[in-house]
Amino acid sequence: MPLKLYYAPGTCSLVPHIALELIGQPFEAQLVKMHKGEHRSPEFLAVNPAGQVPVLQDGDETITQIIAITLYLDALHPQAGLFPQELLARTHAIETLAWLNNTVHTTFNRVFKPEGAVDGEEMQAAVRAKGKQGYAALMERLQDKVVAARAAGNDYLNGASIGVVDAYALTVIRWSQLGGMVPEQQWPQLWDYAERVAAQPAAQRAMERERIRLRAQPLV
Amino acid sequence: MPLKLYYAPGTCSLVPHIALELIGQPFEAQLVKMHKGEHRSPEFLAVNPAGQVPVLQDGDETITQIIAITLYLDALHPQAGLFPQELLARTHAIETLAWLNNTVHTTFNRVFKPEGAVDGEEMQAAVRAKGKQGYAALMERLQDKVVAARAAGNDYLNGASIGVVDAYALTVIRWSQLGGMVPEQQWPQLWDYAERVAAQPAAQRAMERERIRLRAQPLV
Repeated sequence: MPLKLYYAPGTCSLVPHIALELIGQPFEAQLVKMHKGEHRSPEFLAVNPAGQVPVLQDGDETITQIIAITLYLDALHPQAGLFPQELLARTHAIETLAWLNNTVHTTFNRVFKPEGAVDGEEMQAAVRAKGKQGYAALMERLQDKVVAARAAGNDYLNGASIGVVDAYALTVIRWSQLGGMVPEQQWPQLWDYAERVAAQPAAQRAMERERIRLRAQPLV
Repeated sequence: MPLKLYYAPGTCSLVPHIALELIGQPFEAQLVKMHKGEHRSPEFLAVNPAGQVPVLQDGDETITQIIAITLYLDALHPQAGLFPQELLARTHAIETLAWLNNTVHTTFNRVFKPEGAVDGEEMQAAVRAKGKQGYAALMERLQDKVVAARAAGNDYLNGASIGVVDAYALTVIRWSQLGGMVPEQQWPQLWDYAERVAAQPAAQRAMERERIRLRAQPLV
């Protein structure tokens, strides 16, 4: 039975989606229409009670959380290059991945879902505004990491080719536009990197299936 | 040269601290007095520009992020049992670890550092209050996980013995008291679990070095 990924276009499920494309073996991609509330449907809540994507199913096993899913995929397919092979390089890729997950992603949640942090429209607007400031500062730090990687001779955060950490970086750089930022003006080296990641065949295939482009319009 | 851990008592650096004690080999534990602002000192910022603990140094290498540090330690000492050996059990331990890191920990940040989310005392109080509600709901979910583990015959989230995921669970259960919750009344099975984790020799040694107990007084 092939692996099955539940995804919603443009969300963080793009990360394991690109990872599965990097592996290059057949898998089932199950669209969850969040704008139609399908993530709150009894069918999907039976898959993941938290109502979140991504979810990976391997036979009877259900795995959530990007880091757990992608390390699992890496264990199944160690030659796919999802993470660097060498221990220290691998450790630093996981370090950046964890930071994208626990700091960048959660800052974006305050921009997009300030109702998770506070009640009341006025206070939510204040949380969103501060979240945008924080997000911009984090994009600066991400650009620093990209510049440092290139100075060390690596085109990508993962090394000479893209890996899971680059898929997550691509996702959050794209999100900056949803929050009204203009990354190609604000962080040109970061945008250049995002364009290079998005041009990789595995990223292209995943983005085509999700019907998204690197370019995105502001939502908030 | 032994591994060196920078820690601040009772913070999330307790997680790699317990991991190092589980490994059982000599390491250097460097106290960072955050209440005296040492994490903002030029000396510490040279170690970690983000001004955060934990930091692990292995010779010239500096590693941050709990997940990266603990997976690195596991790779160096695969027999120490920091994570389950079997792939699916290991994946689910990492899944819970990632959730503790990106959801429970960040919810606690809104309780303890609401100034990170919004400006102004009144709005910060509102963020803190909603953060406490969210934290209590997450402790319920953590208790569900502990109960499910016991039903499957495991005393700990890691399996038959404690691992990194239990060290993080212990840390966040202890934090609930800092936020004014009363875990032994609100989640008795979770508290029973926390007492069992805290009684393990590795946890005891780390907590003694940090001069903390499982019992803690409300701070906010």
